[in-house]
Amino acid sequence: MAVQWEQLYAERCDGLNASGIREILKVSGGPNFISLAGGLPAPELFPVDEVRRACELVLENAPEQALQYGATEGYEPLRAFISARLARLWNIRSTPDEVLITSGSQQALDLVGRLFINPGDAVVVEDPSYVAALQAFISYQARFLVAPTDDDGVRTDALEELLAREVVKFIYLVPTFQNPSGRTLSLPRRQHLLELSERYGVPIIEDDPYSELRYEGQAIPPLKALDPDGRVIYLGTFSKILDPGMRLGWIVAARPVLDKLVLAKQPADLHTGMFQQMVTFEVVRAGFLEPHVQRLIPVYRERRDALLAALARHFPDGEVTWTRPQGGLFVWATLPPDCHALDFFREAAQEDVSFVPGESFHPRGDVHNTLRLNFSNAAPHKLEDAVARLARAFSKVERGKRRTRQYHEPLAII
Amino acid sequence: MAVQWEQLYAERCDGLNASGIREILKVSGGPNFISLAGGLPAPELFPVDEVRRACELVLENAPEQALQYGATEGYEPLRAFISARLARLWNIRSTPDEVLITSGSQQALDLVGRLFINPGDAVVVEDPSYVAALQAFISYQARFLVAPTDDDGVRTDALEELLAREVVKFIYLVPTFQNPSGRTLSLPRRQHLLELSERYGVPIIEDDPYSELRYEGQAIPPLKALDPDGRVIYLGTFSKILDPGMRLGWIVAARPVLDKLVLAKQPADLHTGMFQQMVTFEVVRAGFLEPHVQRLIPVYRERRDALLAALARHFPDGEVTWTRPQGGLFVWATLPPDCHALDFFREAAQEDVSFVPGESFHPRGDVHNTLRLNFSNAAPHKLEDAVARLARAFSKVERGKRRTRQYHEPLAII
Repeated sequence: MAVQWEQLYAERCDGLNASGIREILKVSGGPNFISLAGGLPAPELFPVDEVRRACELVLENAPEQALQYGATEGYEPLRAFISARLARLWNIRSTPDEVLITSGSQQALDLVGRLFINPGDAVVVEDPSYVAALQAFISYQARFLVAPTDDDGVRTDALEELLAREVVKFIYLVPTFQNPSGRTLSLPRRQHLLELSERYGVPIIEDDPYSELRYEGQAIPPLKALDPDGRVIYLGTFSKILDPGMRLGWIVAARPVLDKLVLAKQPADLHTGMFQQMVTFEVVRAGFLEPHVQRLIPVYRERRDALLAALARHFPDGEVTWTRPQGGLFVWATLPPDCHALDFFREAAQEDVSFVPGESFHPRGDVHNTLRLNFSNAAPHKLEDAVARLARAFSKVERGKRRTRQYHEPLAII
Repeated sequence: MAVQWEQLYAERCDGLNASGIREILKVSGGPNFISLAGGLPAPELFPVDEVRRACELVLENAPEQALQYGATEGYEPLRAFISARLARLWNIRSTPDEVLITSGSQQALDLVGRLFINPGDAVVVEDPSYVAALQAFISYQARFLVAPTDDDGVRTDALEELLAREVVKFIYLVPTFQNPSGRTLSLPRRQHLLELSERYGVPIIEDDPYSELRYEGQAIPPLKALDPDGRVIYLGTFSKILDPGMRLGWIVAARPVLDKLVLAKQPADLHTGMFQQMVTFEVVRAGFLEPHVQRLIPVYRERRDALLAALARHFPDGEVTWTRPQGGLFVWATLPPDCHALDFFREAAQEDVSFVPGESFHPRGDVHNTLRLNFSNAAPHKLEDAVARLARAFSKVERGKRRTRQYHEPLAII
């Protein structure tokens, strides 16, 4: 009897579809292709020499530790480094044993889902939200309560109504330079959010990969820095400030919660690789990160400015609108209501340029005229070029719209 | 209102306790301490120079790829290498796109659980079974149907009765040099098992980390090599034949199943680190593994022989029995029925020696007089020393038993 695979898959996998971003990252165009799709850092800024020296050092001094199994919690000196650095940067108070090293920040999202979500449990997410977080929570069969956002981030008044109405497991958000919108939650709303967390006894998951990448304006403290009671679970990563290729992230949480997250990580992958932890620790241990981030900032600022200037030049008439983020990697654009981002995506591909259609960032999947543009992974002249192509693609979509009403077949890559 | 954390945790985490092995690995004795607990390879045999050269090459030739995000499926050349090597070694037929690179073999177990197990679903496991696989499946709330084993591995007659009685999602086993027992499933039983899989349409999860580490006797083909229909999902790892510190494993499965496993991996950790994949590929690509494994084998054979000889010398009277594995890393011992392995563990710790009490390897947790001894991580004279200490600890336990019936408080480390 043949195995009836389709009948064997667990219910939690029903909601799993190829994520737009991951699939789009695979679309490899020709040499002329420009992708604004992925959230990729600029590879020419990777600290290659420092990684090389760190590999040599680690393999010289501690090869048997680096290539052996390690503890689930992570490499002790790296945990201590992260704890101390967060105190220095943001006044986040933690002890090293309140830090868990994860296999990228994505694993942190997975562990949070694993630890908290029973099938059908409600969690509060922003609209739009980071798609891979939605995917992680969907894979544990979460039910989303969706809080609207505006230019100051999530609308905490609307969020309050959700909390008053339903029991929720946690509130998930990217408060600073959000993926995908680039928006930042204002300080008054941060304070309101923490009050709500206090009033309703609801924990907050603060996903914070971008806050060091600020190109203008004044820093706003992370929620975790404003949280004296350990109600915020804080997620960070080296992926955007160093390199994503070693997959290293972290969770900071109050000790009892961290202990549970460690237990949840054991069956997931035993531990994160010692080699990549020790090499990364060697790179960062002696103050490398601060000047490195200071080198990233002007490059990314110039790219953001180039993208925003090109958008203003090529989309002058207000039909298309977009955010003007003070940091991070993304600009979020909105097309006219009757313009479907998938049609635009198809035309854009014809013009050798890509982006991520916004649909999968909307927790209900009900908004079709948004899209995410990345600016960190292309030089300014390429960004100008890319936007010129987008403008050509857009005018084709608009002409087509006038000719005929298109049937929207779900795109394979979404 | 304080967050009531205990009330927020998901049901799937109820069964999660600190795994005996992971916690015991943390027990650091003094310089005189000898651990036979972990399944750690011999670190002095790690290919340090090769890893160093591979790091240099990768960072010289392709730093921007190695430190950047990659595809969920894994690094293409590594997938092709694994596919080709399994064909050469075992006549396992697969295409590169039937190979998924995982963050260690533990993640492969997790992905299998994630893809197949609804809460309450039955899966067949051996008694004893690899504890970290049990933990992975427990975290998806599997219900275990337990098949007994003997010196020829799992008893397929008993397994047949289980399949006749209940609908099961899959059969999980380590057929070759099993962890913890060291036993190998005989060829006739392998054929019987595949017949049962065919008759009942039940897939088999074959976990195969050890089969290359054979010290005597004739090789037996993996189940996957005897499986023309893709009913076996095959898990492998570099951890035992190269190094565990980079956390690299793989799954080989028929394409439709592999595609689902890829979707299951996306929310778990996006992908396994490119750097560690590319470095490992550089180490192995040009035929390094075969001679390397040939260097491991005599070392591990000598250690196995030393452990077995010491056991025979120090436990001559048949009260304690043990397996005599032809390969792998473990010997599995059985104490007299009235001797609790936790008592023995405590006395052993006093003698500066450790092992893993067997309880957590028994899916029902109902056997208390077994234990796992690792021989790969200590030199022969240390193994001799360790067993002498075990003999002293054992005689103390036996004397204590005659004095008083002890109360068995659950050990914190189990």
